[in-house]
Amino acid sequence: MTNRNNGATRLTDRRTLLGATAATAAVSVLAGAAPAGADAPLPAAEPAPGLPGERGPRIGVLLYEGFTLLDATGPAEVLSRLPGATVTLLGERAGPVRTDTRDVAVLADASLDEVDRLDVLLVPGGGLEGTVGAIENPRLRQWIRRVHRHTRWTTSVCTGSVILAAAGLLTGRRATTHWASAEYIEATYGVTYVPERHVRSGKILTGAGVSAGIDMALLLASELADERTARAIQLIIEYDPAPPFDSGDASEADQELKDLALRLLSESTAR
Amino acid sequence: MTNRNNGATRLTDRRTLLGATAATAAVSVLAGAAPAGADAPLPAAEPAPGLPGERGPRIGVLLYEGFTLLDATGPAEVLSRLPGATVTLLGERAGPVRTDTRDVAVLADASLDEVDRLDVLLVPGGGLEGTVGAIENPRLRQWIRRVHRHTRWTTSVCTGSVILAAAGLLTGRRATTHWASAEYIEATYGVTYVPERHVRSGKILTGAGVSAGIDMALLLASELADERTARAIQLIIEYDPAPPFDSGDASEADQELKDLALRLLSESTAR
Repeated sequence: MTNRNNGATRLTDRRTLLGATAATAAVSVLAGAAPAGADAPLPAAEPAPGLPGERGPRIGVLLYEGFTLLDATGPAEVLSRLPGATVTLLGERAGPVRTDTRDVAVLADASLDEVDRLDVLLVPGGGLEGTVGAIENPRLRQWIRRVHRHTRWTTSVCTGSVILAAAGLLTGRRATTHWASAEYIEATYGVTYVPERHVRSGKILTGAGVSAGIDMALLLASELADERTARAIQLIIEYDPAPPFDSGDASEADQELKDLALRLLSESTAR
Repeated sequence: MTNRNNGATRLTDRRTLLGATAATAAVSVLAGAAPAGADAPLPAAEPAPGLPGERGPRIGVLLYEGFTLLDATGPAEVLSRLPGATVTLLGERAGPVRTDTRDVAVLADASLDEVDRLDVLLVPGGGLEGTVGAIENPRLRQWIRRVHRHTRWTTSVCTGSVILAAAGLLTGRRATTHWASAEYIEATYGVTYVPERHVRSGKILTGAGVSAGIDMALLLASELADERTARAIQLIIEYDPAPPFDSGDASEADQELKDLALRLLSESTAR
């Protein structure tokens, strides 16, 4: 039936809103019961080694003033669907952290002091000021080095790899970064820039600019659980990309478009 | 030079971190001067009609408890790069709003009472509980209807279109939504579900599940500014997607994978 001016929905309708399985779980939540399977990981899930008692991988996303929103939230969206996974956003201090454009603030739910063991560390990139601020923050670099010793995966998106490099993690290694930072990371930190969507070097996984974090996170999901789980997560986020334009590859962009991109980048992050 | 244990960077290095143009602007910011062009939109920019004095489109992203992170942040990332644009995250009350998985909280910087005129309204989708909560919130539905009267574009991602439908905006119209909600939106609100990445119906633009908001936002950027600007933004976010798997299209997914996706969806949002 149509329901023009009244948004109220019958329970029978609700059951179909996001598919029967999802609805069943939610209905039992509304009824105060534990949703089916909520206490045990799916068969697909692997418990995180070295974290007895935890149900799945413990993932930490580092926030700092001037980080780039999608660098952090793309992978967080993907990884938070992993069975039993906990994704925690971390900041030097707990509380709101603003993005490079200042338009959005995301809450750091824990401070660095509270966390020294993670299965996965993810360092997002930022605008110029944000990235330089992180690079020049000894406390941040030391924390990254300390946590990295025990991670299963240390990962970055965009200029996050410049921050990993500043922490001394990428010297002499292959890595990727945002196309506009490729020369910088090679000249400053002795990193071999590889123009790929994501680059693995041991347990370090670096992603290219901003949106590449989504592709990288799906690969990571298959490593942390299995390929079937990663494919299911891709279906959850309906990630069947169809950009209206074909302008995302810097190696195919003309200089004029690159210059415009850098102008928009600087103006959007300097407001 | 390599710079192993010391992240400090020389200014000359910094200038190249995100390309010369970006660095020049940032350096003037650090020096307290206005960055080049910050007070005037780029030639590409169109000032938003009906908003004299503003530099670009005024974009509002509606947050509600249980929204899906990437639904809101994918488009926010793209649209916040538009010349002079302001992207404001809105909630029933200002303050932190948690996502469907509870893993992340994003700050609503303004309450609905503070905003009644927007160039663009974007309504993200949510988990089952979050979407039902929004549907059954008369204040939210009334605010959407009121703001919609004056928008240039009213847009949604994922089950956000179900919320637009509950507000009475989609009755008898063509729209898309998350694949798992297609039957629901047709049966409950008399909407014709179109299984496309994004669907335009007058000034209403609906996006498919979660990640589709990025594609939709690039199209919207070309409408709000021009195609060249949208292409430059695509290059900024290096959106040249290369998913490691090809499982994002529900029409090609086997039932077993759909069932697993719905199980992961329900468990990740019922924790």
